[in-house]
Amino acid sequence: MKTKITELLGIKYPVFQGAMAWIADAGLAAAVSNAGGLGIIAAGAAPVEFVRDEIRRAKQLTDKPFAVNIMLLNPNAPELAQLVIDEGVKVVTTGAGSPAKYMKAWKEAGIKVIPVIASTAYAKRMERMGADAVIAEGMESGGHIGETTTMALLPQVVDAVSIPVICAGGVADGRGMAAARIFGAEGVQCGTIFLSAEECNISQQYKDMIYKANDISTVVTGRASGHPVRSLKSPLSRRLVKMEGHIETRTLEEIEMITAGSLRKAVQDGNVEEGTFMSGQIAGLVNGPSDCKTILETIVGDAERILTHAPALIGMGENDG
Amino acid sequence: MKTKITELLGIKYPVFQGAMAWIADAGLAAAVSNAGGLGIIAAGAAPVEFVRDEIRRAKQLTDKPFAVNIMLLNPNAPELAQLVIDEGVKVVTTGAGSPAKYMKAWKEAGIKVIPVIASTAYAKRMERMGADAVIAEGMESGGHIGETTTMALLPQVVDAVSIPVICAGGVADGRGMAAARIFGAEGVQCGTIFLSAEECNISQQYKDMIYKANDISTVVTGRASGHPVRSLKSPLSRRLVKMEGHIETRTLEEIEMITAGSLRKAVQDGNVEEGTFMSGQIAGLVNGPSDCKTILETIVGDAERILTHAPALIGMGENDG
Repeated sequence: MKTKITELLGIKYPVFQGAMAWIADAGLAAAVSNAGGLGIIAAGAAPVEFVRDEIRRAKQLTDKPFAVNIMLLNPNAPELAQLVIDEGVKVVTTGAGSPAKYMKAWKEAGIKVIPVIASTAYAKRMERMGADAVIAEGMESGGHIGETTTMALLPQVVDAVSIPVICAGGVADGRGMAAARIFGAEGVQCGTIFLSAEECNISQQYKDMIYKANDISTVVTGRASGHPVRSLKSPLSRRLVKMEGHIETRTLEEIEMITAGSLRKAVQDGNVEEGTFMSGQIAGLVNGPSDCKTILETIVGDAERILTHAPALIGMGENDG
Repeated sequence: MKTKITELLGIKYPVFQGAMAWIADAGLAAAVSNAGGLGIIAAGAAPVEFVRDEIRRAKQLTDKPFAVNIMLLNPNAPELAQLVIDEGVKVVTTGAGSPAKYMKAWKEAGIKVIPVIASTAYAKRMERMGADAVIAEGMESGGHIGETTTMALLPQVVDAVSIPVICAGGVADGRGMAAARIFGAEGVQCGTIFLSAEECNISQQYKDMIYKANDISTVVTGRASGHPVRSLKSPLSRRLVKMEGHIETRTLEEIEMITAGSLRKAVQDGNVEEGTFMSGQIAGLVNGPSDCKTILETIVGDAERILTHAPALIGMGENDG
């Protein structure tokens, strides 16, 4: 499948692997890039030295383009912004804040800048600022989210900007990718499905919870504090939902205390009781282990088949001659 | 466009008009049915005599099939269930509860029963119960909603049942309908777009608010009480959000008091201050007045064009010969 995004980035498949904090490391990113997609290292809240090592490790593991995702509200965002220039990273995706301060330096360094956005207003702002594309992320995504769904957000963003739009949120198979193309997206970003990749280094407990998940297995917490996060229903998320519903007994400090480190507890320790297991609503479609190459080839191959046969969905053949 | 749903119901276009309480009356339903879709009268909380009059009015306005939607938790659901049999209604859609009690009588009366569902588990239950199809409704819809988005829900429901699935939530144009077909839906149900129809008898204030809405103009209230409802951001919905965020000052009675009759205030009075203006997230795509025939022909015509040209989205022509 060739789109504006495969051309822009020089990649085989217009599929990004989402920047999942604590999860999207050099190993996963390189595996995705080697398989023809765009692997993304999530800088998350990691120290600059750690991210530098990850970038260098990714360069050793692949000669294909990969990206680094920077959360712009992080205190070390300025250092990370310089790091990607120094290390010659080709693509940067951004979240949680505005890349305004860094845009000029990044563009001068030849970096393609692709912000994650959750509204048409922000998409337009990013286009004016010089972004090369935007990732329109629906609220069915795992992790930190906005409030508009992919089905509602994507066509409105495609109408609002002229730069390429990548669809994120709710895509785990060829149907999702084909639908994204129908809406005018030039590519997709998938998160949850890559949790099933053998190259994705998370606890077995986390993987098993994803495989068992269905269409109503996730929940959004954190709306009360203005930072909504989607994760699997679990002892911790159930406790948070309860606390958020009873403000009398809740203190934001208490919530912060019990959530601090909870993603690490899920990813590394497989701590079912105290971990936050971020996941998209599409987890119900992820039912067992796979690998990055199979995931990419299945999504893109199925999408191509579906799009090829799409004219038959009009039903003319059967009834109207 | 011919699908299992056009065949099942004997309609021209596989497009349902959503059952919007206080809004979806005989006039709107008949206009949609006359234009080739499936018009639906929303019984809502109306008295049985009122619904009987509406059904009879619809029969005078159209000789095409139309449906009645029954909210099963309503106290008068048993009488409404009998009414649709007595009046010879051909199609019933259901919401807010289980149609188990009425299924046998409805099937014996030859009524096609199509429940609205928001999870795969409920879809499977409806199939076992004998439903002819299900409407899978994503949480981007206006009015009473579940929590799973269309993009995540639809493919999982299509995988879960063998009966036809109609896609609701986030569909207001041909792109949405084409995407729904890609996911395997046999039809779509649209609500918000029909608010723009001249045959839709709501206050001008309501219509104007829909035309001005963008992708982040709606909000969900009522999660605290277990009855989430999506409506446009407005003085009342902002007040509710505030109350729900500060449980100290909130009483459920107080919320009930200020919301009672608020939909009528929106629909009939155009009371911007005190009305609840239900709307889907897709309202940003609804920008001015139209009519049922134009809406249906545009959605279906565009969907057919998009599906016809879908093979080009693979990009083979440009780059691979």
